[in-house]
Formats: sequence, C-alpha cells, structure tokens
Amino acid sequence: MPVLVVGSIGLDTVKTPAAEHADLLGGSASYAAVGASFFTGVNLVGVVGDDFPKPHVEFFDQRNIDLCGLQIVPGKTFRWSGEYHLDLNTRSTRSIELNVFEHFTPTLPPNYNRTQYVLLANIAPSLQSHVLDQMVGPRFIIADTMDLWINIAKDDLLGLLKRVDMLILNDGEARQLTGENSLIKAGKLILKMGPRYVAIKKGEHGCLLFGKDDFFTCGAFPLEEIHDPTGAGDTFAGGLAGYLASLDESEVTFQTLRQAVVYGTVLASYNVEAFSLERMRTLTPKEIETRYNSLKLHSTY
Amino acid sequence: MPVLVVGSIGLDTVKTPAAEHADLLGGSASYAAVGASFFTGVNLVGVVGDDFPKPHVEFFDQRNIDLCGLQIVPGKTFRWSGEYHLDLNTRSTRSIELNVFEHFTPTLPPNYNRTQYVLLANIAPSLQSHVLDQMVGPRFIIADTMDLWINIAKDDLLGLLKRVDMLILNDGEARQLTGENSLIKAGKLILKMGPRYVAIKKGEHGCLLFGKDDFFTCGAFPLEEIHDPTGAGDTFAGGLAGYLASLDESEVTFQTLRQAVVYGTVLASYNVEAFSLERMRTLTPKEIETRYNSLKLHSTY
Repeated sequence: MPVLVVGSIGLDTVKTPAAEHADLLGGSASYAAVGASFFTGVNLVGVVGDDFPKPHVEFFDQRNIDLCGLQIVPGKTFRWSGEYHLDLNTRSTRSIELNVFEHFTPTLPPNYNRTQYVLLANIAPSLQSHVLDQMVGPRFIIADTMDLWINIAKDDLLGLLKRVDMLILNDGEARQLTGENSLIKAGKLILKMGPRYVAIKKGEHGCLLFGKDDFFTCGAFPLEEIHDPTGAGDTFAGGLAGYLASLDESEVTFQTLRQAVVYGTVLASYNVEAFSLERMRTLTPKEIETRYNSLKLHSTY
Repeated sequence: MPVLVVGSIGLDTVKTPAAEHADLLGGSASYAAVGASFFTGVNLVGVVGDDFPKPHVEFFDQRNIDLCGLQIVPGKTFRWSGEYHLDLNTRSTRSIELNVFEHFTPTLPPNYNRTQYVLLANIAPSLQSHVLDQMVGPRFIIADTMDLWINIAKDDLLGLLKRVDMLILNDGEARQLTGENSLIKAGKLILKMGPRYVAIKKGEHGCLLFGKDDFFTCGAFPLEEIHDPTGAGDTFAGGLAGYLASLDESEVTFQTLRQAVVYGTVLASYNVEAFSLERMRTLTPKEIETRYNSLKLHSTY
C-alpha cells in the first residue's frame, strides 16, 4: 500500500560547527517521502518553484515516489537557512523565504484521495486539515507538527488532532502543547486531545510511544558523530509511516507501531550521518535491517 | 554473597516545589545499602554521630544489613540540605555540615575484607581507594562518583578508575569527566580510563551501559509523579550491585549487567515515589518483579 506524504519541499542552507552547505534538498515532505520510500510506494504532495533543480526531481522518481501531486509553479522554491549550535541539539533559523510555498494549497490528484495511509508532515495545521477534507476513508492518519504552529495556530492544531490517529512531536513541543513538564503526563494529555497514539521524540534519548493502555520506549541508535540533524524527525516520521503502510494490516496494532517506531529511529540515525538527504542515496535495506537488529540487541535483557 | 557498601550516611533536609522535610535518613551508603538489601546481604561501612536516631539503625538491621562496619562516634551526624527546582531535574545545595564525616576513615572490620562484591558509593575517591587497599581479592568493584570529585579530586578519581570494574555516573558528570558532549563518545572514553563497564544515568531518559564491545540502553520507568529524586542514583547503584552479588557468577557477564541495570532502574523508580527512603520500607519483591517485567514489555518489539 502506498503512503500519501504532504509537506514542505525546499532548498536548505545549513551551517554546523564543522561545515556549511547551501541549496541542499530539504523540507519536511522531502525527508518523509524518501524515508517512507524504503518500505513502500509514496504519493507526494508539495510545491516547488521553476528553479527547483531537476536532479532532485529525478532522485524522488528513482526512489519510487509518485510525483503526480508535485506542483511545479512559476517562481522560486521555498528556502530555509539555519545554523546548529555547538552540541547540535539546538539551532537558530537564519532566514526563511516562503516564495511559492506562501500560496501553497495541497490539492490532491484524483487518484490520491483514497490512499489508505496518510502522513501529514510538518506544515501549517490548516493545510494538513485541508488534505484530510479531500480524503475518502483513510485507514491511518499520522500528523507531525512543530513549535511554530503551537505558538501561532494552536486552535487549528487542536482541531486537526481530533481527526488524526497519531501525532508525532518532540519533547519540547509536547511540553509546550500541554504545559506539562513530565513527558509521561504530557503524552497522556495529548491522547485526550484526539489521537489514539502519540510519539514523543527525544533526540539522542530516543522516543516514547503512548497508546491508551500501552507504552513503548525506544533508545536512539548510539552514534558517535552526527553531521547534520536536519530532517531527522521528518525521516523518522517517514520511515514509521512507510513501514505501517507496507504491512497494510486491517487494523494497526500497538505491536506494529513499536516496530514502526524502531524503523523510524533507524532511518533517522542514518540520515544524520550526512548533510541533507545524502546518506539516503546510498542506504540499503540490508543496512536498515542491521541497525534494526542492533537496536533490538541494545534493549533486550 | 553479600555486597560491601561504603559511603556517606547522613540526615537530609529536602525541599521540593511541593513539600519540605527535615532530618530525613539520607547519604549515599544509606540508599545504596537499602537498595542492595532487596537482593542480598549487605556489609555496611560508614560513620554517624551519637545523635543518629536509633530507628534508622533499626531500619538497617531489619533490612539484613550488617552493621559491624558502622562507626558511631561522639559528635553530630553529617547533614545535607538541598532544594529542588521546579522540574525536579536540578537542585541547589543549601547547606552541608560534615560533622563526624569530616574525619571519616573507612576502616573495614576483619570479616569484611574478603567480601567479593564491592560498591564504593559516592564519597571522596581517596576514601574509596582506601577501602580497596584493605580488600583481599574482590571479584567485582563498582564505584559511583559525583561532579564535586571531578572538580576538586580528579587525579584521585582517575587513580581509582584504574582499580575498579565498573563506574556509575550521570550524564553531566560523564561529559565533565571526558570533555565530550556526545554520551556515546564519553562512555567509550571512560572505558579507556580503566573500568571494563560504565553506566551513564540520564534521569528521566534512563541509562546507557557500555562494555568494550557491548552496549545496552534502558528506558526509565514511566512515572507521572516524582516526589523526591534524592538518592535515586545511589539506590540504582545499590540495586545493581545487590543483584550482581545475589547471582554470584564466577565471572560477571554483560547479560547479567543488563539485568542488573534494569533492577537498579526499578529500585530507583520506587525510591523517588516518596521522600527519603520511605518507599523502601514498604516495597515488596513482588512489586520489584512487576516493574522489571513492565520495563521489559516497554522495550520489546
């Protein structure tokens, strides 16, 4: 089963303490779609300008990502520039140019609206809801979000949460959304806002997965070096959603979600090994299985 | 097999955002000894003044803790007073009175020096080394430490590390000791300083265990409420050491250490449910097994 991925597609300029690279392929949908593509077909919905480099489109195409929903419109592609601080755990945005993304409306091609698995990667919650308005009977809807939307569009986000099966967000965002410092309390509070499942990402500390009566904790893969954390969360969400769609269970179970969280963790762990999506270009299914099994060994006693 | 526990024994005054209690049983050896006592007999080495409340001595005695090594000397017992900040993750020391602890020399009773398992709970590394000077052929030596000793007695600590099998410390201390921000790098660097195993405690994020070619990650038990974090690390170390001693393997294996880390995590999770060691007074073996199995369920996929 394919997964529908909607989100931003952009060109990033990223500075870390070690290096700086300009005009890299970026955006939440780029990372999420490529992450998912290791498990299943992807229907991608997004917008780029007519300056968007052809090789990036070809890369998506090679990854078995359907591009009927990719709008290429006159103008410039969305651009983001950011700088990571010394520990790579925090970053500052240096500039954002919305460009063609400013008037983006995620309109689904006719053959996309019955996709059973939906990943609403990080964009404004009103746009995420607009996608759901067009869907017919999706089986499992996952939404990602970020601090910006909790700050400036919280009502939209709360409305969206009533319509999704699963929310993915990071620890700081979970605390911000709920006003609770305890992540355990925060996770449980978010379940009361609508979704049946919540994944709270904790960076180097792994991920917590909450269900109504279930809980799962996944450690991060123990990496000595991180080269570029950009897109780790989007790649995690993409890997998770792609794995679920590939199984296509009649009902998503918590046991499958545990495995999906681990696959998301594995994909993210590879992605941070290089700038942009560079590591994804060479990543093999065998490498994915190796880390999946390593993480199992790291947590079994 | 019993475990030898040496460390501080004191009376604590603890303030949290929710409550304040004075003159509570505290000190690294108190927590560690009681934690270990759920698994095996304990030989306790420490010092208190003649003001030390009898009920505390009786509590140790009831917990099958041998008190031949408890020095009761004229003067006042060591006192510590601290205040936790709003998130309970950080604290300020309000006052320390060393009292009889100032001239403490951990002299082992004759029947203690062949104890096979040794937990050097948090005290000055020179005193920890002095204990080892008296030991005859111990099988497994664990040392705990704290930021203070890294600051003021780093050479003593580095000397000690060459003599121990395992070091336990928290994430901030691991970074401080190694100058490495990555905990993965820090753990591996500490292994090069002497110990064969290192456990890095991460509070609400659980614990990382490093061996030469092995790695284990243990999530924290998902508690909604923490009442008093004091002694959590000492209780962790005590539970870990007590479990190892109870098995008394001819050679401690990494698989056993994984289990020991989980038992330590379980003991610590109970201890933070109440002030001082109050929760330890009612804790049952069945409750310990329940959380041990829960943690397994939380990490299995």
